[in-house]
Amino acid sequence: MTEKDSGIARRMLLRVPAVGAAAAGLAVLSGQRAASAKAAKPPTVYDVTTWTHSTNPAITCYTDIGALINDIIADIKKLQPNQSSKPGAVIYIPPGDYPLKTRVTVDVSYLTIRGDGHGFASSSIRYNAGDTSAWHEIWPGGSRIRVENTDGHSEGFLVSRSGEPRLSSVVFDNFCLDGLSFTPNQNSYANGKVGIRVDTANDAFRIERMGFVYLERGLVIRDADALSVHGNFIAECGSCVELIGSGQASKVTDNHIGAGYIGYSIFAEQHQGLLIAGNNIFPRGKSLIHLRNTNRSSITGNRLHGFYPGMLDSDGANKENLISGNHFRREPEPWGPMQPYNNGKDDLYGVIHLRGDGNMVTGNLFAYDVPPAKITPSGAKPTIILVASGHNNHLSNNGLVSNVAANAVVLDGSTLGTKVIDSATSSQFVAYTSDYTFRATP
Amino acid sequence: MTEKDSGIARRMLLRVPAVGAAAAGLAVLSGQRAASAKAAKPPTVYDVTTWTHSTNPAITCYTDIGALINDIIADIKKLQPNQSSKPGAVIYIPPGDYPLKTRVTVDVSYLTIRGDGHGFASSSIRYNAGDTSAWHEIWPGGSRIRVENTDGHSEGFLVSRSGEPRLSSVVFDNFCLDGLSFTPNQNSYANGKVGIRVDTANDAFRIERMGFVYLERGLVIRDADALSVHGNFIAECGSCVELIGSGQASKVTDNHIGAGYIGYSIFAEQHQGLLIAGNNIFPRGKSLIHLRNTNRSSITGNRLHGFYPGMLDSDGANKENLISGNHFRREPEPWGPMQPYNNGKDDLYGVIHLRGDGNMVTGNLFAYDVPPAKITPSGAKPTIILVASGHNNHLSNNGLVSNVAANAVVLDGSTLGTKVIDSATSSQFVAYTSDYTFRATP
Amino acid sequence: MTEKDSGIARRMLLRVPAVGAAAAGLAVLSGQRAASAKAAKPPTVYDVTTWTHSTNPAITCYTDIGALINDIIADIKKLQPNQSSKPGAVIYIPPGDYPLKTRVTVDVSYLTIRGDGHGFASSSIRYNAGDTSAWHEIWPGGSRIRVENTDGHSEGFLVSRSGEPRLSSVVFDNFCLDGLSFTPNQNSYANGKVGIRVDTANDAFRIERMGFVYLERGLVIRDADALSVHGNFIAECGSCVELIGSGQASKVTDNHIGAGYIGYSIFAEQHQGLLIAGNNIFPRGKSLIHLRNTNRSSITGNRLHGFYPGMLDSDGANKENLISGNHFRREPEPWGPMQPYNNGKDDLYGVIHLRGDGNMVTGNLFAYDVPPAKITPSGAKPTIILVASGHNNHLSNNGLVSNVAANAVVLDGSTLGTKVIDSATSSQFVAYTSDYTFRATP
Repeated sequence: MTEKDSGIARRMLLRVPAVGAAAAGLAVLSGQRAASAKAAKPPTVYDVTTWTHSTNPAITCYTDIGALINDIIADIKKLQPNQSSKPGAVIYIPPGDYPLKTRVTVDVSYLTIRGDGHGFASSSIRYNAGDTSAWHEIWPGGSRIRVENTDGHSEGFLVSRSGEPRLSSVVFDNFCLDGLSFTPNQNSYANGKVGIRVDTANDAFRIERMGFVYLERGLVIRDADALSVHGNFIAECGSCVELIGSGQASKVTDNHIGAGYIGYSIFAEQHQGLLIAGNNIFPRGKSLIHLRNTNRSSITGNRLHGFYPGMLDSDGANKENLISGNHFRREPEPWGPMQPYNNGKDDLYGVIHLRGDGNMVTGNLFAYDVPPAKITPSGAKPTIILVASGHNNHLSNNGLVSNVAANAVVLDGSTLGTKVIDSATSSQFVAYTSDYTFRATP
Repeated sequence: MTEKDSGIARRMLLRVPAVGAAAAGLAVLSGQRAASAKAAKPPTVYDVTTWTHSTNPAITCYTDIGALINDIIADIKKLQPNQSSKPGAVIYIPPGDYPLKTRVTVDVSYLTIRGDGHGFASSSIRYNAGDTSAWHEIWPGGSRIRVENTDGHSEGFLVSRSGEPRLSSVVFDNFCLDGLSFTPNQNSYANGKVGIRVDTANDAFRIERMGFVYLERGLVIRDADALSVHGNFIAECGSCVELIGSGQASKVTDNHIGAGYIGYSIFAEQHQGLLIAGNNIFPRGKSLIHLRNTNRSSITGNRLHGFYPGMLDSDGANKENLISGNHFRREPEPWGPMQPYNNGKDDLYGVIHLRGDGNMVTGNLFAYDVPPAKITPSGAKPTIILVASGHNNHLSNNGLVSNVAANAVVLDGSTLGTKVIDSATSSQFVAYTSDYTFRATP
Repeated sequence: MTEKDSGIARRMLLRVPAVGAAAAGLAVLSGQRAASAKAAKPPTVYDVTTWTHSTNPAITCYTDIGALINDIIADIKKLQPNQSSKPGAVIYIPPGDYPLKTRVTVDVSYLTIRGDGHGFASSSIRYNAGDTSAWHEIWPGGSRIRVENTDGHSEGFLVSRSGEPRLSSVVFDNFCLDGLSFTPNQNSYANGKVGIRVDTANDAFRIERMGFVYLERGLVIRDADALSVHGNFIAECGSCVELIGSGQASKVTDNHIGAGYIGYSIFAEQHQGLLIAGNNIFPRGKSLIHLRNTNRSSITGNRLHGFYPGMLDSDGANKENLISGNHFRREPEPWGPMQPYNNGKDDLYGVIHLRGDGNMVTGNLFAYDVPPAKITPSGAKPTIILVASGHNNHLSNNGLVSNVAANAVVLDGSTLGTKVIDSATSSQFVAYTSDYTFRATP
């Protein structure tokens, strides 16, 4: 054993509770083993329930998991000082209830933070249920972090690093971030809390199998490259997934997602080649998907269920996106506690509100069912697809089932060169421009 | 350390084998550690190979993993008595062969039962192979539970709880449920065994990366909300996935699935907003997907391969579903041992047999290749899509390749207002009703 | 305890470092426990950092993880001699840097090799970045295996077994295979290295959440049945996924994939019922998807971004495949270091180059943006879909946005019976045959 290895082994011995640390794969070295463990290297698997804080042992995962994880990250950086070998580590969070008082700052690549349970349960149903004293349980669970910052920050987790290269391959896997409550009331979706904010450019990140609940903003990622947001359960958050700044070659796939009426289920800004596919996106969401200056991206094979106009919304100039094979179900809010709220848009806004050029909208089915009395403006014939601006958009082979006469396609007066093919009967089509091509659905 | 924590630590010490329990992440506390482990909480990670049954140590995972898991669940409930903190637990099943004699009853939320290997192997091939004495192995493997109930129950796992709230976030992950054999013969798909039955309303469940083999019914889930069935291998079962009762906002995605001729690969009853996407569904299956009174759901981007008519079947009234981008391959049974069997339907039944209103069938490719001698009734011109009942269905842009002249679309006399657009040439279209719209594929 | 169990327990005691082996779930038995551990069975969870090589303790995961894993596999085979119970095992690779000098040979079913981090980082960016002395880190990470064979073999992992049955349910999960460098220069994509080669028929394999980087060939699988390649990050490899020989009922879904200009991002040979869906396939790739004699397969809902013609390529005779709902973005190489390279094809070759019969190409969006000066042959009107051979292909409802006049569809003189429906305007269509059907996009 080299002196260096030996030193590390001793240091770990002092700082890690020996038996408990073995839980979940932490390779703890004991004195008598060190002699024979020629291969010994610093451990890379950490368990929050057994890690002893380096300077203040009173800090545990049960008093402040945020401060504790920051201490673990400091240890990782200390043990991996060499530019040429920084494999990262895993921080394991067994099922349990953990308060987070201090924001975690992740500034190392190849860090996986992994739990053993996304733990989603509906807090919305519970808060609106009245007397729950006889309930089996009242909170979300699994590997559950209660986001209760007392440090003046809004985020549970901040991922950020300056310098080169950008952070790579940080993974959040299979735990629960719970914002606990909203203010001023439990149906406001507001509490200023952010589950995870990635604030600097990043590559090959994965957000997988997580649960997010009762956060004003669940997941906010700036400048993503080759991001994967897959298999998560993100619901009852003001906004769920916000891809801000810019981004490319990313995907948001196979998630359960449903935001509050104040925010976005999925928002994408200045992305290229984003793939939003196979998600089950349920109410509510000010919009379910919102594109801003996002180009050459795909919204494919999703199921969308919304209670307001603008289910798929956009602003700015969005170019050459493919919106295909999605199911759009629009009906009014059925649940009493949420009926006071909406997104302020009327039924002329479009179930799809499209701004941009060269987009293709094809093979989608719209199932619209809003009682006439709930359609706004009163007496309006609702719009399904509104091409609100832009040129050379291509709408083809879309289907509509509606309980009322509706305009399947409406073209704004500013639009140019839209092709509308087999997407509206003659009586379902309105153009405020003369620059378009129309072939009516027979 | 509080007295309460101390008490728990001591109790665990007595009941959990100390070293072995550390396997797979069980945070075991030993006496000398307890004093310094101020953060100590009851463990939430259980390993079936090291857990000692609380009342009868003769019961182990190698004698009856079902009784053992029930004992673990009882321990979870005992250690988490407080309504306000029930994070649940993980029960880990390392690779191994485990007999299940007693049905497991899961009645806690946030429980993950996790193995390390779906372990599928074809028992059908093996049973029909003749002499296998020289084979390397003959059974499925991985974290394999042999469903061998001697308790009078049919299920390996029953998930059920009365009272409020419904169970949330129970996860079955990455192990194998093997029903071992069928009776009266190995090609009957019958043995009365059910892998997992969820029998009460549930939210945010996940069934992931599992293997199911040789069960009469693999997975049966009643009243699912926001269920995810993802990444599983469910084959050589009578029926594979049955979503019964009712359900909403669920998804069955990215699975390998293939039932026997007696049952369903995927069955959905009274679901809303179900997303069946990206599955590779192979033979056989009485039907590959069967919808009953299921509405506003999507069947998108699947590959389906079947040996009988009615690959996508339906009964009742199914409304406003989107069936798009699927590949349907229909050929006759090629394998000798299974050639005696079929689902009793003839080729006029339709590769798709559609009952309901406002459904959209679009962008699918049908590759039909059945020798004339095997088409029934003899001499019939086979039907690809049969609209058997309902109004306002929309068939557009479907493709057909067939070895024989076939009717791409047939409309039953009871149907009203079907649109058939670019889905059949004139010679491939038959309507027994006069109430329809037809634009022939050029 | 039976004598046999006791013997096994003792043997393990001698060979496995006691405490460290408990890491990551290795069920180690100690002498004093054995008496009470009536359930004791050979362990099935191995940790590469604690395993002691059976004959040469100098071999560790830090000297040659390949030789070490081979020793573990030998142990699995020794401990599971019985044909009727071979559940397999898990080999766990914690985050770390591990050299592989000796090829691993996997010849047991139900083996999972699992890490804790795919660890992708761009080596291409780093190698072309100039001075990286100030970088935080310079290599990929996670559970990273450096493929550095000194044994004369080209593969990091070879999966191969003769006899019956074929191997089942081998799983590679969540680690990184890094080929380190290319020769003669870092932009050649050549080093002769293969990450994983499966060389004999196989069933129900899974390749999941892996990272592959800087290998000439990442993943090569022969004769796959019901394979799943899901959620991987496979980039900066000469070729990424090659499914060779033959195969059926497999899927390549939800991956990030991007090959070098010398190879394929996804290649499939003689497959039936392959589902390539929901992938984000980025540059470069001689082709992004290449089919050879592959039938009744689906390419659905992918995002493809390429820098050369032939993004979706084919040779041989490919029959009855469905190519739908994909987004094809074609632009010229924007990055200086790679601008010297291309795949040698010109813009008349087609973004899609299709050879075969009865294929359906529908609902795709092509976004073509190549400055005229970079189009070859000089002055050519580029081709988007070239039907290069075959009969009865069906192109419908495809959209095109292009910066230059382009031929959306070109039919070779050898083709017969192609239907071109709503996929090209009259000025975007060229047929060198008279045997076709054309309905112009209005």
